[in-house]
Amino acid sequence: MVSNTRLIEFKDIKNTESRDGYMGHLVPIEAESDIPFAINRIYYIADVPEGQVRGFHSHNDLEQVLICLHGSVTVKISTPFEEEHIVLDRLNKGLYIGPMVWREMYDFSQDAVLLVLASKHYDEADYIRDYPAYCRQAEGYFKGGE
Amino acid sequence: MVSNTRLIEFKDIKNTESRDGYMGHLVPIEAESDIPFAINRIYYIADVPEGQVRGFHSHNDLEQVLICLHGSVTVKISTPFEEEHIVLDRLNKGLYIGPMVWREMYDFSQDAVLLVLASKHYDEADYIRDYPAYCRQAEGYFKGGE
Repeated sequence: MVSNTRLIEFKDIKNTESRDGYMGHLVPIEAESDIPFAINRIYYIADVPEGQVRGFHSHNDLEQVLICLHGSVTVKISTPFEEEHIVLDRLNKGLYIGPMVWREMYDFSQDAVLLVLASKHYDEADYIRDYPAYCRQAEGYFKGGE
Repeated sequence: MVSNTRLIEFKDIKNTESRDGYMGHLVPIEAESDIPFAINRIYYIADVPEGQVRGFHSHNDLEQVLICLHGSVTVKISTPFEEEHIVLDRLNKGLYIGPMVWREMYDFSQDAVLLVLASKHYDEADYIRDYPAYCRQAEGYFKGGE
């Protein structure tokens, strides 16, 4: 995986405890346990038109976990030294993205709902939106990559 | 509204900043600000078969916010003195449920995804699952209702 990223497999509880049998899926995520940070912010993205690409930024400090709760979306994660494309299409598949990783989200299915759990409150000063400036900072940060 | 419950209207950011115009919806929720508690746990429920009813419990202490991120679901909230049925069917409509409120979730649409934000980590001891026991406790707690 790209540095400062990893996949997290969450529990997927297929409730069958009712007399009627199957009751659906329940995925629980405990902060600072199933994910490595406290959840200070969440956001979700939906109804993204076909062909749209979102993201185009990195964060100095923020940690996030991305999960696609309905439909599917592909996330490009990259540093100046590495690049990967991760398809999110399962309730219990989380993509952890740490500091200094560039991300772009694309191929949203029409019914896609992308949930993002974030370690900090919104802070525009933590965003790096200029790609050349990101590359300069990230080259120093990753010191040639792993 | 039933005691210890209320509706919360979240911001719904319809991103139009791209050169292509509309980019979809983004709903941000800041912990301890847009909702009145720290998020120590989240869970989501999906793929619930038609006719299933979930919930059937109350909590001694836990605070939760329920949001339907796709499709729709109806939540019955009640105390021994009050009862209400809330349809959740919008990205930015949250249902806050505080302590000692009985809840049942039903009428899940086939594509429904219900997200729950919770103030505490999972603790089975905080659940009240026996309805007669719940009623006895809740009658004392709400002292005759409002």
